[in-house]
Amino acid sequence: MALIVQKYGGSSLETAERIRAVAERIVATKKQGHDVVVVCSAMGDTTDELLDLAAQVNPVPPGREMDMLLTAGERISNALVAMAIESFGAKAQSFTGSQAGVITTEKHGNARIVEVTPGRVREALDKGRICLVAGFQGVNRESKDVTTLGRGGSDTTAVALAAALKADVCEIYSDVDGVYTADPRIVSNAKKLEKLSFEEMLELAAVGSKILVLRSVEYARAFGVPMRVRSSYSNDPGTLVAGSMEDIPVEEATLTGVATDNSEAKITIVGIQDSPGAAAKIFRTVADAEINIDMVLQNVSAIENNLTDITFTCPRSEGPRAVEMLKKIQEAEGWANVLYDDQVGKVSLVGAGMKSHPGVTATFCETLRDHGINIELISTSEIRISVLIRESELPEAARALHAAFELGGDEEAKVYAGTGR
Amino acid sequence: MALIVQKYGGSSLETAERIRAVAERIVATKKQGHDVVVVCSAMGDTTDELLDLAAQVNPVPPGREMDMLLTAGERISNALVAMAIESFGAKAQSFTGSQAGVITTEKHGNARIVEVTPGRVREALDKGRICLVAGFQGVNRESKDVTTLGRGGSDTTAVALAAALKADVCEIYSDVDGVYTADPRIVSNAKKLEKLSFEEMLELAAVGSKILVLRSVEYARAFGVPMRVRSSYSNDPGTLVAGSMEDIPVEEATLTGVATDNSEAKITIVGIQDSPGAAAKIFRTVADAEINIDMVLQNVSAIENNLTDITFTCPRSEGPRAVEMLKKIQEAEGWANVLYDDQVGKVSLVGAGMKSHPGVTATFCETLRDHGINIELISTSEIRISVLIRESELPEAARALHAAFELGGDEEAKVYAGTGR
Repeated sequence: MALIVQKYGGSSLETAERIRAVAERIVATKKQGHDVVVVCSAMGDTTDELLDLAAQVNPVPPGREMDMLLTAGERISNALVAMAIESFGAKAQSFTGSQAGVITTEKHGNARIVEVTPGRVREALDKGRICLVAGFQGVNRESKDVTTLGRGGSDTTAVALAAALKADVCEIYSDVDGVYTADPRIVSNAKKLEKLSFEEMLELAAVGSKILVLRSVEYARAFGVPMRVRSSYSNDPGTLVAGSMEDIPVEEATLTGVATDNSEAKITIVGIQDSPGAAAKIFRTVADAEINIDMVLQNVSAIENNLTDITFTCPRSEGPRAVEMLKKIQEAEGWANVLYDDQVGKVSLVGAGMKSHPGVTATFCETLRDHGINIELISTSEIRISVLIRESELPEAARALHAAFELGGDEEAKVYAGTGR
Repeated sequence: MALIVQKYGGSSLETAERIRAVAERIVATKKQGHDVVVVCSAMGDTTDELLDLAAQVNPVPPGREMDMLLTAGERISNALVAMAIESFGAKAQSFTGSQAGVITTEKHGNARIVEVTPGRVREALDKGRICLVAGFQGVNRESKDVTTLGRGGSDTTAVALAAALKADVCEIYSDVDGVYTADPRIVSNAKKLEKLSFEEMLELAAVGSKILVLRSVEYARAFGVPMRVRSSYSNDPGTLVAGSMEDIPVEEATLTGVATDNSEAKITIVGIQDSPGAAAKIFRTVADAEINIDMVLQNVSAIENNLTDITFTCPRSEGPRAVEMLKKIQEAEGWANVLYDDQVGKVSLVGAGMKSHPGVTATFCETLRDHGINIELISTSEIRISVLIRESELPEAARALHAAFELGGDEEAKVYAGTGR
């Protein structure tokens, strides 16, 4: 008998019918003899609708009230799933984040979990009940106010509960049935991975895979909670995310997959006097606006005039704001120009096998060259290569790299409608 | 400076625009120098929508989960009103029933308030904040689970908070601007009352006035909390409900008003052997089905065969079920028949003045006779006369009685669209 934590996303809970389907799956797991704790997101578009209402009554709503408002969504979905479970003859009990002992930092809107003390959940499990815990929420220690965990918070709730309850596995259900070697909508023979390490999953999440939220994988890695990515529409075992890359024998280390990302924009500052502090000025300006920078390139300065260019990427949604901040200081800093390009895309190759296969970078670049694709920026980690190219060339690049590194399977991949968040 | 508790119903909070209007009114009260505690119902049809969803996932939803579900509605409206208040420059803080210290009995779906310990609310008031408390909900002492207070529970929350905080008044806002001598949609010159006693309001609520929920008036009377019925659309002072009938000098005691009710049905059991226990059997059967009985009539039995009839009224929605229960035992009990009539209506006259004016019952019956209206059942209390007539004759009866007792004003009454619950 295992203790299993299951997390269901909003699209799996969009209607009463889907809620009943999810409940049936939960009850089936319980009937296999396991203890089951379930974390549900808010139904379908509930959160967006509440955000919209809030914006109508106050364009700058106070954080504490925003959290009180948004957490209602998860209460609703969890109570409904509990009801549906009871209709299938099993016993269920729902808990708010606070009741489940999810203690967070004080900050509203983006609190971090400090501690999970799931005494009431444990007690209910011991009575043979299926426990439903509202995701995305907790209570802060000082003020005893309701807090939310920010984007993807329900995944983090699930992993944190799994860690606190010493669960055997944390299953993340969405409309995607696993982690693939590439996006099956782009690469038709993308293969579902049976297993990958936390490090590989972190790299994939960081370069655009939307399967799992980065923060939840970090949490799972820190506490050694195995995660399993599964679809709420099939019985496929999905993909296991567990173990450290260090534990994979060299001869078994492989390449994990190809990821694409078209959510970034490129900013280039032209004609910078190449002196100490020039780059720092740029990145401080952007950081002060709370904009994250991803890839960075600084050219070697031309000998004749000692001028250089700096190029970096940031989220496309923040691009115009970043440009505005930089244009403000352009004259004072003496830069020739600030250029903006939002037609870029990033293609990445991830895998622990990269460490033991020195030719990977060369093959990567040759493959793109053979397809006439120009590389604008390169960034690498121990187990990842990412390059910036034209957005329009992303699909071709992904297919070419996927084929060059022989990542594909023999079958056509199943393609799902949504993205599963 | 006074401490004022204000309660706003769902129709006053139907849209973002109305929420902003309510917030403006709350801030205006605060700016007059008063401490303000606000209790909000769920927005518009939220509760009905949640009930509908619950019915879809489980036709017999467990009470605990139902309460977890339904209380989300009040969290949403209270958080939104708090946000709107902040947008007008005042400080607001919202509380769940549990956070506000509303402790209830264990029973889900229809819990009763045991105690209110509003320490956190008091503290926030002392910091100059406007406090929003989610109505209709509390937390039970033993299980620490969320409970709901049943129909009209938000009114009860408001009165209970007012009592615990020793508030000067509890204002109940809806789309009706006071208590009238009759329903203005039926009697065009119905007059708004400036003031009435708790007993008179209780009698009116019991015989069909939907202005205030019976339970909240009972609570207010027990704790001596003055209530004021006001409209959220006007600045009219509304109607004050306060004081005991006993304290009204005889010469000032008047007739309060006429109320009509078409929510009941009439059941007659024909041919009952007139022996001890015959009536008890009927009422035990109905009581076991948790159906409330209102008016009762037992005929004098005919001498020749010692047979009698018993007639009673109950909620029309429960009528068919009551008949079904009685039909089941009809043969065993030897009754001739069980008759059902849902075309009945009840018209009532209420007022402390009745005690000192002995001719009221006579005038009441003569008035109906003069209009050719037949009385089917009569029931009375010290300050009330109610009769059962044909439903179709209700408007005429109300107008005739209103005129006969000279309850009307000189002006046409304002007529509102909704009923204000």
